[in-house]
Amino acid sequence: MINNIILQLEKIKSINPLIYHITNYVTVNDCANICLAIGASPIMADDMEEIGDITAIASSLVINTGTLNKRTAEAMISAGVEANKRGIPVVLDPVGAGASGLRNETVLQLLEKVKFSVIRGNLSEILYLTEGHANTKGVDAADEDRAFSSVKIASRCADALGCTVAITGKTDVVSDGQRVLCINNGHEMLSKVTGTGCMCSSLIGAFCGANNDMLMAAAGGIICMGIAGELAYEVSEKAGLGSFHISLIDAIGNMSRQILIERAKIYAPSY
Amino acid sequence: MINNIILQLEKIKSINPLIYHITNYVTVNDCANICLAIGASPIMADDMEEIGDITAIASSLVINTGTLNKRTAEAMISAGVEANKRGIPVVLDPVGAGASGLRNETVLQLLEKVKFSVIRGNLSEILYLTEGHANTKGVDAADEDRAFSSVKIASRCADALGCTVAITGKTDVVSDGQRVLCINNGHEMLSKVTGTGCMCSSLIGAFCGANNDMLMAAAGGIICMGIAGELAYEVSEKAGLGSFHISLIDAIGNMSRQILIERAKIYAPSY
Amino acid sequence: MINNIILQLEKIKSINPLIYHITNYVTVNDCANICLAIGASPIMADDMEEIGDITAIASSLVINTGTLNKRTAEAMISAGVEANKRGIPVVLDPVGAGASGLRNETVLQLLEKVKFSVIRGNLSEILYLTEGHANTKGVDAADEDRAFSSVKIASRCADALGCTVAITGKTDVVSDGQRVLCINNGHEMLSKVTGTGCMCSSLIGAFCGANNDMLMAAAGGIICMGIAGELAYEVSEKAGLGSFHISLIDAIGNMSRQILIERAKIYAPSY
Repeated sequence: MINNIILQLEKIKSINPLIYHITNYVTVNDCANICLAIGASPIMADDMEEIGDITAIASSLVINTGTLNKRTAEAMISAGVEANKRGIPVVLDPVGAGASGLRNETVLQLLEKVKFSVIRGNLSEILYLTEGHANTKGVDAADEDRAFSSVKIASRCADALGCTVAITGKTDVVSDGQRVLCINNGHEMLSKVTGTGCMCSSLIGAFCGANNDMLMAAAGGIICMGIAGELAYEVSEKAGLGSFHISLIDAIGNMSRQILIERAKIYAPSY
Repeated sequence: MINNIILQLEKIKSINPLIYHITNYVTVNDCANICLAIGASPIMADDMEEIGDITAIASSLVINTGTLNKRTAEAMISAGVEANKRGIPVVLDPVGAGASGLRNETVLQLLEKVKFSVIRGNLSEILYLTEGHANTKGVDAADEDRAFSSVKIASRCADALGCTVAITGKTDVVSDGQRVLCINNGHEMLSKVTGTGCMCSSLIGAFCGANNDMLMAAAGGIICMGIAGELAYEVSEKAGLGSFHISLIDAIGNMSRQILIERAKIYAPSY
Repeated sequence: MINNIILQLEKIKSINPLIYHITNYVTVNDCANICLAIGASPIMADDMEEIGDITAIASSLVINTGTLNKRTAEAMISAGVEANKRGIPVVLDPVGAGASGLRNETVLQLLEKVKFSVIRGNLSEILYLTEGHANTKGVDAADEDRAFSSVKIASRCADALGCTVAITGKTDVVSDGQRVLCINNGHEMLSKVTGTGCMCSSLIGAFCGANNDMLMAAAGGIICMGIAGELAYEVSEKAGLGSFHISLIDAIGNMSRQILIERAKIYAPSY
């Protein structure tokens, strides 16, 4: 399995895919830098008038709903539709889904109008998507769902939405509805730096922009981010969170076949 | 006095308050990361439609007028009003007050419609507030005011606006109109990194979101920022401003009872 | 020639020019910090209503078309016109010129309505400007142009637009139509960090804000950025791209007469 990820990484570095982002202004610099570090090129643009031109030159599109507003929400939907027309993969990071009506409505509209290749979120965001999409009637079903494990939720959501779904957390889970993969890389300090989820989605965008198997592309981005967390912790443990943040970009830039072989903890769950 | 600050810091780390920011896009990443580093959680959102939902889950609101526009200025006012209704503390960082008509009008409208818990700015920003609010007639009074010391200006502004006012500078001053505190932590390199004022306001937001005494909460945020400047200088002196910037986040993440006891220079002025 | 650059750097540090930016939200933090590091002060603002007030206190204006939208594009044009009225230098970084209709139209409108002091871009951006401005009829002329060297293109573009034009790349070229300078500083890792071009334009803004010879001001900004790339590589080579990024700001903050004398590789080409 790790050989597939290694080949994907090499492909990114050889073709330098252009990753079109409509994303939040909090973590956008890190998203751009992590794309460059993995070997892709980022382009950030959010005006409606640019969507056609930029989609035309992009290898994939990453839609991230942090700090969205009505203007950019509209651009997200149009860009997603345009990317679908052109057949380039679209990654959704539904930041804050469940936290506000605007985000919920935007995410639901996105799910209705855009065919995603990969959706990556934390457990509560993916739960919102599953519930909001599959069952908008009440809270009971939702509460019941929360007993499901991430594996079951990811599979079910992937099945319902017809795309690859990744839930990142202590153990990361990726499913395309048929296959399920678990990843045990990462470090808890990742949750103390803003945007490590956004950066992970950008990495997934880079993998999707250079490869065809969306499940493996999602796994590739998540493994790289997790290993970067481990390496950054080892380097910057004594320094602190600011240094850890910088070391994440260092680690992604230095990601290699050797590191992936030594570090990757990916497996198909037996249940 | 430092025991109070230590207890506040422990409270932040135990309850992880959610700090809602409507802030500028220049320093927003640092504001988010410094919130995480001190033990709080940041949420950034600026669309009018999200205000109700996000205020409902937030522990405090930080309004920062850097890079504002007419759309976000309107959101700042509405979010402030909503936060007042819900009884959560509101911190104002009037970035650039006095520098443009748009910022002045927005700040004056904010002062008119929103009850702030803490306002933090540099001397010229707070002077603008005092003058603009207490006396919009002319320049003479303003010029006269400039002779007042920061202590007098902070007290007077706090008294006029009915909230805690912090003036940060070489010596930081905090007053709630009754009490006054001075803080002598910090390092001059802080003025050579963009957003150290914004970060300080975000830290104050974190302290306000976890504690009830707004004067002491403001002092807590300012002391932590000042000590971080000292520690960052000691670590990164030979490297330079980029490293100093990163070391600030390191230092906030490592802030502890021990460091506060050893480093804090806070006192009530005798005049 | 390097003595002129040294004097310019000293001038920046002594007068601390205020550099007004209307720029993208991806790299804005780095642009602000690099201004501070070189000894200037940044101010970022993009609302139409602030243009008059902020131009009135600024020493130069930097317009950067990354992440523009219709609202900020309009602000860019108005600010440029206002800066011209007040006689302060205007620097254009036409990020993405040629990549989308919106950027192309905005850049062409800017060229039509605003008199620039310096335009800095990569080869393809400057080619777009030259072609778009001098010949909008067809592709043939454009294709033919691509055979010209950067030196010829910079000279021709400078001549056509009546301003200093800088093309940054492996060898950087600056021309005001009469004079041409080449700079051989820099490091290839600069292309793996987002915003090194934007930062270079901000440095040019700082040099323009403190000095009168626009050709030499452009050269000053470019040399400093190039040397910073070399120094950052030497310091952070083994660490990686995140550390390299931070070391760039360190190096700009530490830029000195001595370093410029030892490192600068600037010459007038003999052809």
